Amino acid sequence: MIYLSCDYQEGCTPEILQRLAESNMEQTEGYGLDVHCARARQLILSACGLNPQRDGFWREDQTAGMVHFFVGGTQTNEIVIGSLLRPHQGVLCADSGHIQVHETGAIEHGGHKVLALPTKDGKLTAMQVQDAIMQHQFDPNIEHVVQPGMVYLSFPTETGLIYSRQELQAISAICKQYGLPLYIDGARLGYGLTAEGSNVTLRDIARLADLFYIGGTKQGALFGEALVITNAAYRKDFRYLIKQGGAMFAKGRLLGLQFETLFTDDLYWRLSRHANEQAMRIKQALQSKGYPMPLDSPTNQQFAIFEDDKLAQLQQEFTLSVVEKTDPTHTLVRICTSWATQSEWIDRLIAAL
Amino acid sequence: MIYLSCDYQEGCTPEILQRLAESNMEQTEGYGLDVHCARARQLILSACGLNPQRDGFWREDQTAGMVHFFVGGTQTNEIVIGSLLRPHQGVLCADSGHIQVHETGAIEHGGHKVLALPTKDGKLTAMQVQDAIMQHQFDPNIEHVVQPGMVYLSFPTETGLIYSRQELQAISAICKQYGLPLYIDGARLGYGLTAEGSNVTLRDIARLADLFYIGGTKQGALFGEALVITNAAYRKDFRYLIKQGGAMFAKGRLLGLQFETLFTDDLYWRLSRHANEQAMRIKQALQSKGYPMPLDSPTNQQFAIFEDDKLAQLQQEFTLSVVEKTDPTHTLVRICTSWATQSEWIDRLIAAL
Amino acid sequence: MIYLSCDYQEGCTPEILQRLAESNMEQTEGYGLDVHCARARQLILSACGLNPQRDGFWREDQTAGMVHFFVGGTQTNEIVIGSLLRPHQGVLCADSGHIQVHETGAIEHGGHKVLALPTKDGKLTAMQVQDAIMQHQFDPNIEHVVQPGMVYLSFPTETGLIYSRQELQAISAICKQYGLPLYIDGARLGYGLTAEGSNVTLRDIARLADLFYIGGTKQGALFGEALVITNAAYRKDFRYLIKQGGAMFAKGRLLGLQFETLFTDDLYWRLSRHANEQAMRIKQALQSKGYPMPLDSPTNQQFAIFEDDKLAQLQQEFTLSVVEKTDPTHTLVRICTSWATQSEWIDRLIAAL
Amino acid sequence: MIYLSCDYQEGCTPEILQRLAESNMEQTEGYGLDVHCARARQLILSACGLNPQRDGFWREDQTAGMVHFFVGGTQTNEIVIGSLLRPHQGVLCADSGHIQVHETGAIEHGGHKVLALPTKDGKLTAMQVQDAIMQHQFDPNIEHVVQPGMVYLSFPTETGLIYSRQELQAISAICKQYGLPLYIDGARLGYGLTAEGSNVTLRDIARLADLFYIGGTKQGALFGEALVITNAAYRKDFRYLIKQGGAMFAKGRLLGLQFETLFTDDLYWRLSRHANEQAMRIKQALQSKGYPMPLDSPTNQQFAIFEDDKLAQLQQEFTLSVVEKTDPTHTLVRICTSWATQSEWIDRLIAAL
Repeated sequence: MIYLSCDYQEGCTPEILQRLAESNMEQTEGYGLDVHCARARQLILSACGLNPQRDGFWREDQTAGMVHFFVGGTQTNEIVIGSLLRPHQGVLCADSGHIQVHETGAIEHGGHKVLALPTKDGKLTAMQVQDAIMQHQFDPNIEHVVQPGMVYLSFPTETGLIYSRQELQAISAICKQYGLPLYIDGARLGYGLTAEGSNVTLRDIARLADLFYIGGTKQGALFGEALVITNAAYRKDFRYLIKQGGAMFAKGRLLGLQFETLFTDDLYWRLSRHANEQAMRIKQALQSKGYPMPLDSPTNQQFAIFEDDKLAQLQQEFTLSVVEKTDPTHTLVRICTSWATQSEWIDRLIAAL
Repeated sequence: MIYLSCDYQEGCTPEILQRLAESNMEQTEGYGLDVHCARARQLILSACGLNPQRDGFWREDQTAGMVHFFVGGTQTNEIVIGSLLRPHQGVLCADSGHIQVHETGAIEHGGHKVLALPTKDGKLTAMQVQDAIMQHQFDPNIEHVVQPGMVYLSFPTETGLIYSRQELQAISAICKQYGLPLYIDGARLGYGLTAEGSNVTLRDIARLADLFYIGGTKQGALFGEALVITNAAYRKDFRYLIKQGGAMFAKGRLLGLQFETLFTDDLYWRLSRHANEQAMRIKQALQSKGYPMPLDSPTNQQFAIFEDDKLAQLQQEFTLSVVEKTDPTHTLVRICTSWATQSEWIDRLIAAL
Repeated sequence: MIYLSCDYQEGCTPEILQRLAESNMEQTEGYGLDVHCARARQLILSACGLNPQRDGFWREDQTAGMVHFFVGGTQTNEIVIGSLLRPHQGVLCADSGHIQVHETGAIEHGGHKVLALPTKDGKLTAMQVQDAIMQHQFDPNIEHVVQPGMVYLSFPTETGLIYSRQELQAISAICKQYGLPLYIDGARLGYGLTAEGSNVTLRDIARLADLFYIGGTKQGALFGEALVITNAAYRKDFRYLIKQGGAMFAKGRLLGLQFETLFTDDLYWRLSRHANEQAMRIKQALQSKGYPMPLDSPTNQQFAIFEDDKLAQLQQEFTLSVVEKTDPTHTLVRICTSWATQSEWIDRLIAAL
Repeated sequence: MIYLSCDYQEGCTPEILQRLAESNMEQTEGYGLDVHCARARQLILSACGLNPQRDGFWREDQTAGMVHFFVGGTQTNEIVIGSLLRPHQGVLCADSGHIQVHETGAIEHGGHKVLALPTKDGKLTAMQVQDAIMQHQFDPNIEHVVQPGMVYLSFPTETGLIYSRQELQAISAICKQYGLPLYIDGARLGYGLTAEGSNVTLRDIARLADLFYIGGTKQGALFGEALVITNAAYRKDFRYLIKQGGAMFAKGRLLGLQFETLFTDDLYWRLSRHANEQAMRIKQALQSKGYPMPLDSPTNQQFAIFEDDKLAQLQQEFTLSVVEKTDPTHTLVRICTSWATQSEWIDRLIAAL
C-alpha cells in the first residue's frame, strides 16, 4: 500500500536522522537555549532577510526573541493568538481556516472568538478584511460585539492554493492601516513558496506578516514549526507564553537541529520543490484523463472527483483522503505528495488512473 | 420624546416599587437564601407545574437548587453554558442568537465555541440540530472538531418570533435522543407565551427544556432573570458557579422580591399581554398603511421598512431602533413596546404613521 | 432578632428609595449611557479631585471612560484583573485577600494566578511587594514562573484594618517603579476613609491607585460599585470587557442614580461615619469588659473572642458572624455595623455584654 | 565540561535512535493511531498489570482510550487537570508541586486554582488531603471558596523523594472515599520505582491512581510521556482534549516507537537503575566528606550544601544546578544523574569533592 493521503506519514529526511545520531550524546542546555537553536535562528533570519536586532529580550542571544520553535501547528496557533489578543478581541479568518474547523476549538478554549469570513476558495481578500473592520466600527452596539483584533491566514491555504504577492500586500496594508497584526500559518510554507507561478518569496512573507511560522512537520522534519516574530511589538515575554502553553520543549535542541539542517544547503527548498513536482505530474495526468478538479492547486495537495468504482480500484493500491461525496456515485478526493514521495509511486498512480 | 426603541427604558412596575419600599428595612440573609427568594421559587415552580423535590442540594430549602436568580441575561447564559459543557464541547445556536452576536464573545471567553447554524428567521429546526450532530459523528477527523454539547434557543427569538409547541417538542426530542441538554433563553418569555397564536405554555417550556430562564429585566422588573433547572442532572454545585461568575447578588432578596411580586396575581402575564396588545395595534396600523414588514412577529417587537423621509419625521417624536438600510432610500426599523407602554403613545404613533 | 452579622442585610438608605420612586417612569438609554450615570460620574470625579479629560473614548461623555458602574465586587474584580493582565501574569495580593479566598476562583477562572503573599494582619507592605517582584526577576527559571503583573489590595482590609497614607504611598511608589498597576478594592471604602485615625482621603486613593472602586452595596446602596480608572492607560475598550463579563447592566440608570444620591450632600460620608461610630461604641464596651480583641479595627467590623456560653446567650438576641473556634471553649466572632445600624440596637448589645 | 545539572541534557538511549532509523521510511497513520503506538500501549498496560477492556471508545484498538502519548509533562498536566475538573473546582497539590511553581500558571490559564498545601519535604499526606476536604465541606461560605476536585502528586517529588506504598494507599483511600480522582505525575517515575528502599511497583501505581503518566523525556527518550487512565470514568472524549490542547502529535508513531523500545527487554528499568546507582555513589561521597544534605533522596537528584569557594572550583569542571544561597558563604546545589551519566564522570566528581 502506498500512502498518498497526507504529508506526514513518514519519519524525516535522512539528513536530519544523521544529524540526530551525530549529536545524540552532546550535552546542552534545555528549553531552546542551546547552540543548535541559536544556529537555526540565524539561518532562518538570514533566509528571511532579517538582521537580528536588540529587542529588549533579556537573554544574551539577540535572536532568541525573534524565532521560537514549536512541536506542532495547533500549539503554535493558540499561543500566538492568545498572546496577541485582549479578552474582547477575536481573530479574522477564512471560514475554512484551520483554527476555525480543525483545532477542536483551541482558540475559543483560550478565550477568543474566531471571526470566520465566508470564502469560495479559502482565501481572504483585503476588501473583506476591511469590510469586517468597518462593519464593527459602525455597529451601533459596538461594545456588545467581539472586536476584530488580528488577521490569520494560511499560505498556502488548507486546500493548497496560494496568494499572490499583490494579494498579500493588500491584506498587509489594511492590517497596518487599522493596527491589526497579520499572522500567517505556514504549515506548508515551503510547498507554497516554491509552487509554479508563485511570485511570493520568504522575504516577502517576512516583510508583510507581523508573525508567521515555517512548517517543518509536513516538510521533511520529524516535527517542528519555526515561529518568526518580525514585529518587535509582539515579542515581549513570549517565552512565558510558550511555557504556559505546554510548548516549552525540554530538549529544544531537537527542534533547533532539525531547522539547522533544513536551512543548510537549501534542503528545505529542495524538498519542497520535489513534492510540488510530483504533485504537478499527478495534476497533469488527472487533467489529461478528464477527471474533474474543482480546485486549481499549484502545490502538493491535488483534489479530484472520481467515480466510486474507480476510487475503490485506486484504494486497493493507494491510500487517498476522502473529502466528501459530490453526488451518489462520485467522491471528491485529496491526493497528497510530500518531500518523501517517490517518483515511482507516482508512475504507478498515473498508470492506475 | 416617546421611547419605543427598546423594552428596558423605564424603571419597574409600580407594585415592585411598593414592595421594595415596604420591605426596605427588613433584615435578611444575603446571597439568595432569604424568605423572598424562597417564596419566589415556590411561586415560579408552581407556575411551571413542578413539584420541588429532593435534589441532593445541601441547603434546607428544597427548591433552592431548582431556581436561581440572576441580574442579567448575559451572565445567566455564560454561567449556564459554562456549567454544562466540557472543554471540547460547543453550543448549537441560531446564527442570529444572542450568544453568537451580542455578548462580546462571553461564551468563547468562557472557553467554548458557539456552533452557529444558519437560519432564515432566527429559528432553529429539529432537523438542522440533528444534521449538525450527525455531521459531527461521521466526521473522519471527529476529534479535531468541536463536539456539539448542548442546544441554545431563544423564545421568542431575537426578532420576536415564536416556536410552536410542536417545533419545540421536536427539538427537545432530538436533544434527548442524543443526550444534549436544551437550554431556552427567555429574556422575553412572557411576551412569547402570551402572544396571539402561541400554543406554548410555561408548563410546556418546563417540560421540554432542561434549563430555561424567565426574563424580568424586559418584563416589568428593575432587573432580574429566574433560571429554572428542571433536569436534576444539571443542578449540582450550581451556586459555586454563580459566585465564580460574579453573579452571586449580595442582597439577593431584591431579586426574590421582584419575582415574588411578578408571580403574584398573574402580574407577569398581565404586563406581558399589555405589551403584546399595544404591539398588535402598531402591527395592524403598519399593515393597513402598507409598510413592508419582513417579519411576521406576534410579540412586542415589530419590524417595518420606512422611506427615509418618513422615518426622519417619526424620529422627531419617537425613538425607534434602526436595524439597517435596505436600499439607498429605505430603512428597516424596530418598534418595541413593553409592560410600560402607554396606550396613548401608540395612539400618537398610529396617527403619525 | 437583631442582625449584626454583616453589612448588607437591609435594603438601602431612604434617599435612594425616594429617588428610585421619583424617577421610575423616566425613559432613558440603557447600558450606563443615561443622564443619571453621567451626573454620578461627575460627582464622583469631583470628589476624587479629578478633571474629566479627553481619553480617546469614543462616546461624547468625556467621563464615561473614567468611571464605570458594576452590580457587585466580584464581577468588578474579575473584569478589572482580566483586563490588566497578559496571560502569563498574576496578581499580587495578601493571602487573606477577597480574590484569593472568597471568590470561588473567579480570577483563576479568568486565567490568572493569584500570587498570595503571607501577612499577619491582611495588609501588604511595600517591602514584600518589592521582594516578590525582585525574587521573580532573579529566578533562574523566570519563564517557568507566573510573572507579577499588578497589585491588588483592599482598603480597608477584609478584617477592617486600614493602611496609612504613608503605607499606601510606599506601595504605590514600588508599583510605579516596576510598572505594575495598583488596584484598590474599596468594597467598604467609606468606612475606611472615615475611620478614626485614618489619614487617607479619597483624593489620596485617586492619586495613588491606578484603578479603584467605591463600594455601594455595603455602604447604603441597594447594590452597586463605582470603578474609577485614574490611569488613562487602562481605560481602552473597557466597556467591551464589562459586556463580555456579563456586567453591562441593562437599566444602568439604577446604578447612576444610586451613586448620584450617595455623592450628593455628603450622604456617603455621613452613612460611613455613622457605622463607624456605632462600631466604636461596641469596641469600647468590649474592651472595658475585657473581651480579647485580636484585631484593632477602627472600622465597622469588630472582632472579639467570647466564651461559648456567653456567645450562645448573645445569639438569642443578635446574629453574629462566627469566624472560628480559638480553643475548645472559646470562639472568635465578627460584629458588624452598617449605615443602617440603629443606635438602640447597640445600646441593647452593650447591655447584653 | 560535564553536565550534571539536569536529566535532559542529552538526546536519547541508542536503542531508540536505532529504531528511529530503521522505521524512518515506514508509512503510517498519524495522530497516534499507528502500529507503534498500539504496541507501546499493549506493552505499557501489560507492565501495569492491566487488561485492556472495552471502554466505549470508538476506535477499534481497545487500549487506545487507556494510554495516550504526550510530548511533555506540562501539556500532559494541563490537559488531564482541565479534563477532570468542573469550573469551580481546584486541584490539591503540595506547595512545591510542579503545577504550582514551574508551569507559568498553566493550570490557572486553564481556569482552575491550584490549592497548594504546605509541606516540609514536598510530600502530601493523606491526613492533610482529608483535612483540606473537610475544611471545605464545613466552610460556612462553602460556595464562595474553590472546591477541591482532585489530588495531584509527583512520584518521586520535585526533589527526588519517594512515597511508600502505605503512604500512597492512604492517599488513594481518602480520594476514593470523597470521590476525588488521584493523578500522579511520573516525570521521573522510573527513577522513583527503582530507588533503593522503594516498596512501590508500577502495578501499585496503576492500582492506586486514577490517572498517571510514565515519564520518558527525563528517562532515556528524546521526548515523550505516556498517560495511563486506569479509571474508565475519566477516559471519555480524551482525544478531543489532546487535540484542543495542541498536544495531538502529527507523527504520533515517534512517541509510540520510543515507548515500545523503552518497554522492551526492561530497558526503561535498566536505564532508571543506572541513574540511581550513579546518584548513590555521589550521595555516599558527599556524606563521607561531610557535606550537609538537607534532603535524603534515594533517586537521581541529590542535594548538598557547598561552601562557595568549593562550589566555584567544582563549577570549573561540572555544571550543577544552584537552588539557593543558604547563608552568605554557602549554597544549596542540586546534582543530577540520568540514564546517560557515565560512570567515569562520577569518578571525576568524587575525586573533585
